[in-house]
This record gives sequence, C-alpha cells and structure tokens, in this order.
Amino acid sequence: MSRDIIPGAIDAVRSGKPLVHCITNYVTVNDCANALLAVGGAPVMADDEAEAADIAGIANALVINIGTLNARTIRSMKIAGKAAAAKKIPVVLDPVGAGASRLRTDTALELIAEIPFTVIRGNVSEIRTLVSGTGSTRGVDASASDLSEYGISSVLADARALSEKTGAVVAVTGATDVIAFKETAYAVDNGHIMLTEITGSGCMLSAITGAFAGAMPENPAEAVAAAFCTMGLSGEIAAKASKKLGIGSFHTALIDALYRMDRRTLEKGMKLHAL
Amino acid sequence: MSRDIIPGAIDAVRSGKPLVHCITNYVTVNDCANALLAVGGAPVMADDEAEAADIAGIANALVINIGTLNARTIRSMKIAGKAAAAKKIPVVLDPVGAGASRLRTDTALELIAEIPFTVIRGNVSEIRTLVSGTGSTRGVDASASDLSEYGISSVLADARALSEKTGAVVAVTGATDVIAFKETAYAVDNGHIMLTEITGSGCMLSAITGAFAGAMPENPAEAVAAAFCTMGLSGEIAAKASKKLGIGSFHTALIDALYRMDRRTLEKGMKLHAL
Amino acid sequence: MSRDIIPGAIDAVRSGKPLVHCITNYVTVNDCANALLAVGGAPVMADDEAEAADIAGIANALVINIGTLNARTIRSMKIAGKAAAAKKIPVVLDPVGAGASRLRTDTALELIAEIPFTVIRGNVSEIRTLVSGTGSTRGVDASASDLSEYGISSVLADARALSEKTGAVVAVTGATDVIAFKETAYAVDNGHIMLTEITGSGCMLSAITGAFAGAMPENPAEAVAAAFCTMGLSGEIAAKASKKLGIGSFHTALIDALYRMDRRTLEKGMKLHAL
Repeated sequence: MSRDIIPGAIDAVRSGKPLVHCITNYVTVNDCANALLAVGGAPVMADDEAEAADIAGIANALVINIGTLNARTIRSMKIAGKAAAAKKIPVVLDPVGAGASRLRTDTALELIAEIPFTVIRGNVSEIRTLVSGTGSTRGVDASASDLSEYGISSVLADARALSEKTGAVVAVTGATDVIAFKETAYAVDNGHIMLTEITGSGCMLSAITGAFAGAMPENPAEAVAAAFCTMGLSGEIAAKASKKLGIGSFHTALIDALYRMDRRTLEKGMKLHAL
Repeated sequence: MSRDIIPGAIDAVRSGKPLVHCITNYVTVNDCANALLAVGGAPVMADDEAEAADIAGIANALVINIGTLNARTIRSMKIAGKAAAAKKIPVVLDPVGAGASRLRTDTALELIAEIPFTVIRGNVSEIRTLVSGTGSTRGVDASASDLSEYGISSVLADARALSEKTGAVVAVTGATDVIAFKETAYAVDNGHIMLTEITGSGCMLSAITGAFAGAMPENPAEAVAAAFCTMGLSGEIAAKASKKLGIGSFHTALIDALYRMDRRTLEKGMKLHAL
Repeated sequence: MSRDIIPGAIDAVRSGKPLVHCITNYVTVNDCANALLAVGGAPVMADDEAEAADIAGIANALVINIGTLNARTIRSMKIAGKAAAAKKIPVVLDPVGAGASRLRTDTALELIAEIPFTVIRGNVSEIRTLVSGTGSTRGVDASASDLSEYGISSVLADARALSEKTGAVVAVTGATDVIAFKETAYAVDNGHIMLTEITGSGCMLSAITGAFAGAMPENPAEAVAAAFCTMGLSGEIAAKASKKLGIGSFHTALIDALYRMDRRTLEKGMKLHAL
C-alpha cells in the first residue's frame, strides 16, 4: 500500500537534500528556509525575473507562494514556473490570501492556468476561491474553524474538483487536512492548535512539501502526505516540548522537532487514513 | 476614569480579533505578525499598490511603517492610508528613521499631510523630526538615552505639538513613554533595557497598537496606552523569564509574554500615570 | 603581534557602537540586525536608491549582500558603495550565490569592478566564481564539505588572488576559514557544523564583519579575523548551550552567545593561526 512509503519519505529528503527554489513572501521567508534545512533540504530564495529561470534550472523543486506578491515577483513566478515545468521538477503553489484581494485571486487563477502545478496547498478559503473563481478570505492566517464550517466531505469535493481541473495534488489544511489526487485521497489528523497561532505554519508546510516532492517525484500524493504528517506531528511535539509557554517557545520547538523528525517517529505518530 | 479601561483592552483585542493590515519593513515583519497573533489580533501583510485598497478594505486597522520604504511601497502606503481613512478604521504611522535620510523625512511629512492618522508612534528623534520638519537620527534603533537628553516635559511638548498639528494620538517611546491626545496625556514606565537591544520592539509595538486601536476605536489614547503597557510589561516579564541569557532568549520570551498577557497581569503590573 | 589585538576587538565594537548600513537579502535580514545588536553595533537597513547615499553617509560601515538582489537594489548597492568609499568607511561584500545564476555572478563581478571593497566574504564556491569569473554553486547555503574538496592551500591561493585583484581582505568560510590580505593570512578553526544547518550564519557573519571593520578600520584583516572567531566560537557555545536540541534552539542560543561574547572568552576560545 502506498501509505507504507510515507514514513520513509523523511529519509528520502535527508539523503537527497533537494534544493528548493522558493519565490515566497518576506513575512515568513526565514522560517521557510530554516524549515527546509531542518528536514534535510536546501533553500534558495530568488525572486527576480532576471534569474528566475536560472535558479529554477539548478533546483529540484520550485515553491511559489503569493503571500506578498507584486507585479515584479508575479513575472518571476511565471518565468520560474514555466522553466521548472519544462525541466519536469515538482512545482508547488501556495495561494496565500486568494480571495482577500482581486490581485491575489486573479494571480492565483492565472498561475494555475499557465503552470502545470504538481501540488496546490492552501486553506479551505483559498482552495474554494480557486475552485469557484471568486471568494472571500479573512487575512492570510486562517483558523482551524475554517474546516468545521464546511465539513470534510465538502473540503474533499473542493479538493477533487481543483485536482481534476489542474492535474495537481490538492492539499487543504484544516483541523483535519485533506489531500486529493486522482483516485487517491488522504486525511491527516496530525497537528496542534498552536500551529494556527504563529505566522508561517502554512508557508513552512508548503516549503517542505516542495522538499518532499523533490525527493520522491514519482509519488506526489504520498510526498505531500508525508510533508503534512511531518509538520503536524512536529507541531504536536513542539507544543509538548515548549509546555505551551507561548508562541515564541513553540516556534523554536517546532523548528527543533522538524530537525529531529525521523522515520520511526513518523511511523509511530502519523495519523493518516485513506478517504 | 478612562485609565480604568486599560487592562480590559487586552480582552477586547482577544475577543475582537482585529485584522491588522501592515505595510511594513522586511526587517521585522515576521516579528510584527507574531506579535499581532500573540495579543489576539490577525495580521495581513500586503504592500502592493494593486491590492493596497482591497486589503485595507477588509481590515480593522492599518499600520504604516516606513522602515524599508521605496517608491513602490510609498505609493501603496498612500493608497491604503486613504482607503482606511475613508472606511474610518484606525491608521497608525511608525515613521522609522525619520531624520536619517531625506527620503524618510519627506515621506513621513507627506504621509501626515495626506492621511488623517489615528496614532503616530516613534522615538524622540523621529517625533522631533516630524514636529520640526527636519532632524537627524542615528539609525533606526534609538536607545533609551534618547529620552534622557530631552526630559519628559520636552517630549510631552513635542508630542502635544504633533498631536495638535495632525489630530493623532502621538506616542513617544523612551525610558518613560509619553502619550498625548487633546487634553489627555499619559506616561508609561513599563519596559526593560533589553527591549532596546533587539530589533523590532518599536515595530512590534506599532503593530499591536494597530490591534488595540482596532479593537477599541472609540478610545484611541487608552488603546495606545494599553498597547504600550502590554509591550513594556511583556519586556519586563521576558527579561526575568529569559534570565537575561541574551537577546535570542529574550526575544522568544517576549513573544511568549505577549501571548500570555491578560487583564489581571496588566492591572497588577502596568505603570501608567496621567501627565 | 597583530594577532594579539583580536580579542580586544569585541570591546572596540561594544564601545564604538558602529552603525552598519546593510543592503541585504530579506531571508536573513532580521538575523543580521539582531546579530549586529548582539555584538554591540547598530543596524540600519535601507535599500532604496533614493536614500542609499544618505544612509551610507551616516554609517560607520556598509555591508552589501546580494542574497535576494534585483535591478532596483543593485542600483542602490552601487550608489551606496560609491558613497561609502568616498567617505572612506569600510565596505563589505557578501556575494551570496555567485555562480548560481548569471545575474548573481555578473552583479558580483560588476560590484568588485566598481567599488573598492574593504572585505569580501564568501564560501569557497562564491570566491572561486569571483576569481575565475565563472562558477557553479548549489544554492546559497554551502556545506562544510565545500572546503574539503579543495584543501586549505587551494582556498588560500584563491583568496590571495582575489585580494590582489581587488585590494580587499578576502575571507573564505569553510570547516577552516581562511583570511588573506597582502602578506597576512589567517586560518580560523572555530565553528560548529550546526552553523551550516541554519540559514543566515554567513549573512550574520558578513554583517558583524562590517561592525568589526567599522570599529577598527585601521586593521581590517584583524577585524575580519575577530568577527570570524566571534561567530565561530559563538556557534560552539550555542551548540553546547542548546544541547543540540535542534536548529531552532541553536539559533536562539547563537544570538545569546554573540550577545555575551567578551574579550576573555575570545582570548580563551579563539582558534586562530597565521598561515
């Protein structure tokens, strides 16, 4: 069963050391770089159109995050996305805040029209926006309640619809995470409420998703599931390790937990089931 | 007495969860987002002119920080500031480094001429620059000695002058913080020297001031005072909690202290008096 | 012997409080600011061409880091670099990722052709790129293995060649760091593998190199050696203090160690020898 390959994905990342090109927002970019290093990948952040294709050309995966987009970086996203697709490396989209402004919604829709993404990862509001072509989002740090409003079956329906439309693995973060790709669908119940109380959990998850997909490109849905289990379980470990002192300590402990994550911990702690 | 409403302000933020649109510098933007989350607000960082008005339109407050300004983001600041003013949500200005370059001084002066700010928060040098229209600042992380050179009465005179000129609550950070608005003036003696030894204390304070003002827009001076007491007292708690190991541990403990701040802690620890 | 002045360099930084203007990448800019504050300097980050010369004009040193360069910031780098050189303050170049894209390689080569740098600090790949005018780099976080591939004598030859070509102190980071300037050359054996497992070690090192050079401009090679010993020794202390829990804790402990670094600790712990 393909579920069995998931714990070993962390070994694949640590031995493969995938170089992940991120065009991402400046709010959480440092967290993304450290999260990538913590799981065994290597980050390269580069967002200028004059080097977007060159950098994508040396990378093992590309992650596009629209968290603080502008006209210049949007051009770079498109150039890098096309270069990465031509090179057949995995390309991940994090449509941060799609639905919150016309610029974000339009850009996300343009990106999925122009680039054959391997993975699209967002919260419920963002994914609904991409399915419907419209939407409204309250900021960029969606709460866990996002999911409860809809229920897993609605989320899965949205994910399947977007996956069919784009050919991508679609992964939706919430109290329960939902991952859909062709006939496959997974639910991930790892995680901790404190992941929603810091900035950057979603961005870091998208970044390491790039590392996992880069390390095992032949199994994209399982790569995504492994990234989700890794982040969710690290959140659980971090909440315990930091004794919930606060989000400062939790943040530090989260990076530590990502750094120490291994196959055995994943095997024992991952809460994944097929849908 | 309006002073009595200050400890409850933290409850107002936590229950209201104000969405705070920040156009801010990339040095401390991650800290600003986490500080906002820690006190119970929600951050949305967006600095492109193509979405500045849209994002201001869904926010409960706007914070403009000129720490790493450029021509593109200055345009966004003005668009967002006008959209926020039209929508009558609180708008906070942090004139980082006003006086240190002509660009910063001119931009800050243009912003206060064009946008009816609710709050202007800076250090002594920055506020003096805005009062006089000129000035010289040594970098952007002013030391506590800023205040001692002038004395509280001079600082209060500057704050009152700028408040009269702009209609804003003017809040000046120093060893003793001074807040002036119409007939009201407060001094805040909370704080710790280590707040001046990390980057981002001032930026985080401006960011959470946006959250407090967004949560209680009818009492802007008290909202600002509550934000100042919250940050200063959190600094005191963090210095103790981190045993002054260094600014790395202090920084983590500061975010933790903001996260755990509550009405009772504020009531007991705030050092505020009317001037 | 000039080696003897190295431990006292930290006192020179703490008493001189050099203001360091950084035009740097947005990935690690927060770390750079806190590292500068931790060793006793003061940061000012400003990357717009409209203020680049003004800010360089009030600074005691300038650090140019091309980690997330673009056309706008490249213009600012050149303007600031020329203003700083005219003012005769130390100028440090960190050619992050030179060799990884044509834009980075060309920009780094243009910068060393147009600006008389005081210090150029990079990893082996980056320095080789600048020596040869071409190169290939795998991302921007080079591993310690960079050095072992070449051996110290090759690294020293590259460093001497680039120093001769540019007139700068050339400092190359690796398992052993190599510093070359005219007839002088130093090797630094301080450091810890975990410094290569977080993002920002190199950037922070370049930033504090600016502070050390700004505090003792008359001895640039020794200023660089002091910065290298300070960072490497802080890494050793941080690895011990954080019990290798992970790179989150290590990162916090590293900033703490920089904050507590003093002359005695340097005297006792620095592993420096002349080459």
